[in-house]
Amino acid sequence: MGKRVVIVGGVAAGMKTAARLRRLDAEAEIIVLERGPQLSYGACGFPYFISGEVKSMDSFDHTPQGALRDSDYFAAVKGIDARCGCNVQKMDRVQKCVHYMEKGELKKLSYDVLVLATGSTPVKLPLPNADAAGIHSFWFPWDVEAVDKEIAEGGVKDVVIIGAGFIGLELAEAFVRRGLHTSVLEQQDRLLPQLLDEDMAALLLRDTKNPLLDIYLEERAGAFTVENGKVSGVQTDKRVIPAQLVIVAVGVRPNVELAREAGLVIGPSGCIAVNEYLQTSDDAIYAGGDCAENTHRVSGAKVFVPMGSTANKHGRVIADNICGARKQYPGVLGTAACRFFAQEAGATGLNERTARQAGIDFASAIVPGSDRLGYMPGVGRIVLKLLAEKSSGRVLGAQAVGASVAKRIDILAAAISLGATLENLSGLDLAYAPPFNTPIENIATAANVLQNKLDGQLRSINPVEFEKNRTQEDYLFVDVRTPAEVAAKRIADIPSRVNLPLDTLRTADISKMDKEQKIVTACQIDLRGYEAEVILRARGFQDVYSLEGGMSGWPYATESDKDKK
Amino acid sequence: MGKRVVIVGGVAAGMKTAARLRRLDAEAEIIVLERGPQLSYGACGFPYFISGEVKSMDSFDHTPQGALRDSDYFAAVKGIDARCGCNVQKMDRVQKCVHYMEKGELKKLSYDVLVLATGSTPVKLPLPNADAAGIHSFWFPWDVEAVDKEIAEGGVKDVVIIGAGFIGLELAEAFVRRGLHTSVLEQQDRLLPQLLDEDMAALLLRDTKNPLLDIYLEERAGAFTVENGKVSGVQTDKRVIPAQLVIVAVGVRPNVELAREAGLVIGPSGCIAVNEYLQTSDDAIYAGGDCAENTHRVSGAKVFVPMGSTANKHGRVIADNICGARKQYPGVLGTAACRFFAQEAGATGLNERTARQAGIDFASAIVPGSDRLGYMPGVGRIVLKLLAEKSSGRVLGAQAVGASVAKRIDILAAAISLGATLENLSGLDLAYAPPFNTPIENIATAANVLQNKLDGQLRSINPVEFEKNRTQEDYLFVDVRTPAEVAAKRIADIPSRVNLPLDTLRTADISKMDKEQKIVTACQIDLRGYEAEVILRARGFQDVYSLEGGMSGWPYATESDKDKK
Repeated sequence: MGKRVVIVGGVAAGMKTAARLRRLDAEAEIIVLERGPQLSYGACGFPYFISGEVKSMDSFDHTPQGALRDSDYFAAVKGIDARCGCNVQKMDRVQKCVHYMEKGELKKLSYDVLVLATGSTPVKLPLPNADAAGIHSFWFPWDVEAVDKEIAEGGVKDVVIIGAGFIGLELAEAFVRRGLHTSVLEQQDRLLPQLLDEDMAALLLRDTKNPLLDIYLEERAGAFTVENGKVSGVQTDKRVIPAQLVIVAVGVRPNVELAREAGLVIGPSGCIAVNEYLQTSDDAIYAGGDCAENTHRVSGAKVFVPMGSTANKHGRVIADNICGARKQYPGVLGTAACRFFAQEAGATGLNERTARQAGIDFASAIVPGSDRLGYMPGVGRIVLKLLAEKSSGRVLGAQAVGASVAKRIDILAAAISLGATLENLSGLDLAYAPPFNTPIENIATAANVLQNKLDGQLRSINPVEFEKNRTQEDYLFVDVRTPAEVAAKRIADIPSRVNLPLDTLRTADISKMDKEQKIVTACQIDLRGYEAEVILRARGFQDVYSLEGGMSGWPYATESDKDKK
Repeated sequence: MGKRVVIVGGVAAGMKTAARLRRLDAEAEIIVLERGPQLSYGACGFPYFISGEVKSMDSFDHTPQGALRDSDYFAAVKGIDARCGCNVQKMDRVQKCVHYMEKGELKKLSYDVLVLATGSTPVKLPLPNADAAGIHSFWFPWDVEAVDKEIAEGGVKDVVIIGAGFIGLELAEAFVRRGLHTSVLEQQDRLLPQLLDEDMAALLLRDTKNPLLDIYLEERAGAFTVENGKVSGVQTDKRVIPAQLVIVAVGVRPNVELAREAGLVIGPSGCIAVNEYLQTSDDAIYAGGDCAENTHRVSGAKVFVPMGSTANKHGRVIADNICGARKQYPGVLGTAACRFFAQEAGATGLNERTARQAGIDFASAIVPGSDRLGYMPGVGRIVLKLLAEKSSGRVLGAQAVGASVAKRIDILAAAISLGATLENLSGLDLAYAPPFNTPIENIATAANVLQNKLDGQLRSINPVEFEKNRTQEDYLFVDVRTPAEVAAKRIADIPSRVNLPLDTLRTADISKMDKEQKIVTACQIDLRGYEAEVILRARGFQDVYSLEGGMSGWPYATESDKDKK
């Protein structure tokens, strides 16, 4: 028998470590201690069980061939001794052993190598009546089963989800698909506040309309109201939202108590500190999955980014290193995407907030486009935002909202991982065919726009910036779309505006226009706005800017919206 | 007025050069000479007009706002003097002028800078009756209109497409959608012969079944049969295939005659040689688009890769350089993808043939998987093939067949462009969510499999290799799937086989099996085959290999197929 490797936690990182380790080392004794009743389940799919898209909870802990991934399975198939219901209480690093409870009995197990894959736990809201029936986290299989049961039993008409992160949004769509009136309550000013900048989050919100869905931003839950011992509503600082079911999805916290009590170093993110080999401050102890600290590949910041995909990568690297490989884990970009009704939203790398925190001087551009050729069936709109370092053109991060988002975000994640500049993105030889994209890919267009901006050829205004000043400032708004386009949709409350279609602009008599005045040009997606900016500058106007993203990327109210109200 | 830039060719590269140049330089005189009647049209979408997915030919030369992109449009909107029907006959590099025919009159135009964007022309087949009515190329708008007209007029029931490249396959699907019996004739042994290796092409073929579609490989057209002056069939070396309509799609040739006659250097690929700034052997003359030679980013080989997406990138770089920027064009990967009935096929970088030509010692792996979590609605199968350099792990190329192929190929194209190794791919932080992928992305899985192979942890056999020897060689075939899976589908004509489900393999009594004998393990997608390989090796077997791609990646006949026949 080889060395004994004890793994604490048997869901993603733990089981991946064990499986890879067995393939590399037929001799090692591999013991997994899982405190819960289930091994190796895929929690990321839970919202799709609630939506009805996934028919059975078995999908999450059975193999494609229908075998339950339990202790017997791991013993027979993988040669791993994986034990459920084993709650580790204490690590003794001097004796190299762990103490754990199993069926009420305290047991002790020595190790040669220890792996901590203790995961994370949902944050609870310390509010009045927070323990009432009908209030749930949505993290463990039993949470999911309880929520599903309450809906199936009837009596749930209104759901409130607290938190507009990934789980919140995925669940909102799931509940609406299930026919329930759903309210999402978020104390910050936007959807996906960890991920998206204000402009991109506003775009996601703009195009999400469903009669069963209400979204309340900048609003905070203060208490739960209760009737007959069951939750009846959420009291916010502005109203009471009725609810027979409440999901608290305000984030998770890494499970680091064991590590902290054993004196392992906890990093600035609150996770267990690890080196590039995923070793903790004790060489004989590795940490992986949600409980382990990640390093951001762009900023170098220490971050808590709990993802099942990351946990699996950690597991592989840990197993390799236990076998002496000295493999480095390259860190994360915080890449993520979700489907939200008719749109997708995603991001990778740094956003404005995290780029600022990293002290990087950056510029950004918002670029709308089509996800394939405009004449192809199924074409959808996608708005991309890129951030790049001003001095070097290095791409820092990207966000996208609309159609085929996950594809673009993944391409960008690959490029950013490998240190891409805007020039690199512009030259990418991507697979062009009409069903898949446009001859100049959205990514290349966005890179070109931002490069133009860095080169001073394009001077554009971000829509958030424009929104803040548009009713007060002194400027002329030059809409270069066709009169028909202008009639269909235009921004309300612009003090001074004129419609000069682009095809008239080179020759139009604009001798009466003040060449010193500030001008903002705009069109549908900003290509014509940019052309107009260039033409007007060539015609002697000094202070010309185009509205980034045009009407397609304008996330706020328009006159047609106002008319409808 | 600034310098005069004359551009020969007004479709993709030419018009892109002109448009970008105008934005950079308000003063330049920009004159485009296009010999055809139309400017700036998008030929890549033509098959989708034939299929009926695109309703009007106007889609290809009008803006999204409905304006025809003609000379008036380019004059008014872009400030470009673009002239149709101007056929350049000769370049005089000493006088710096071009001679061209316009409406029967020979004219002369001097230039400061000349841009050649002369495109390419379809190759014709020098066969008997090749000029009969009903035989078409499919390249120019008038080809498309003629083909559509013949179908619309009735009388076309059978179509033969000669050539199984992109245009051939896209058109095959289009004709079948149009209800026509369609035969594809390809003289090489596979679909997409420029792009795919034998194994991947066989997979694409395996899963393409349509009652209206016949595919003839390794079969060569010898003549056209004619009735009443119209084509009636294609005579091959094996049969006559009836056809009232024939498309010759055997490739295109760069239009380099002008350049050659003017003494510009023609490169080894047959295209106009250019340096990294896209200048020809004459500093004052640039070349871009199909007529310009590309450099392969992985092999450094000079290649002819005509793509609209490349033409647009060329145009941008040329315009920048005319303005003094000294921008380098980074070259191509030959990335391409197409939809073919229920599947997509795509590739980027080198394949076996081009890697061999480049003299690189490489290894490859074929890895099937799901394009999203197996329990999600809409899940599809995707088979990825990766090639990497043995010594360095540098990724050389990738191919994919199945669902969501374009996404994976684009991610890989981005990574390969930036010099990725297998380890880089394994660590990519891609956007994981159940609707989009699996926690370990196909790309990471494929990279891990190939890395295992390079590290000697996995010894697998490629299916093409196995197919060649499977009926003769002496080996034991160990199928580690469940008995139900084996019953559903198994490879025919295996001399010696046994079914040992993976969950029995660690403990099964295999004392009678010869430890020196060659063993081939196999499962559904090769994960269990790999586990089995490792287990058997640990149990003392010396000569064990797993069948790469398992049954999912097995492109040849199975017993169930045979039974059906």
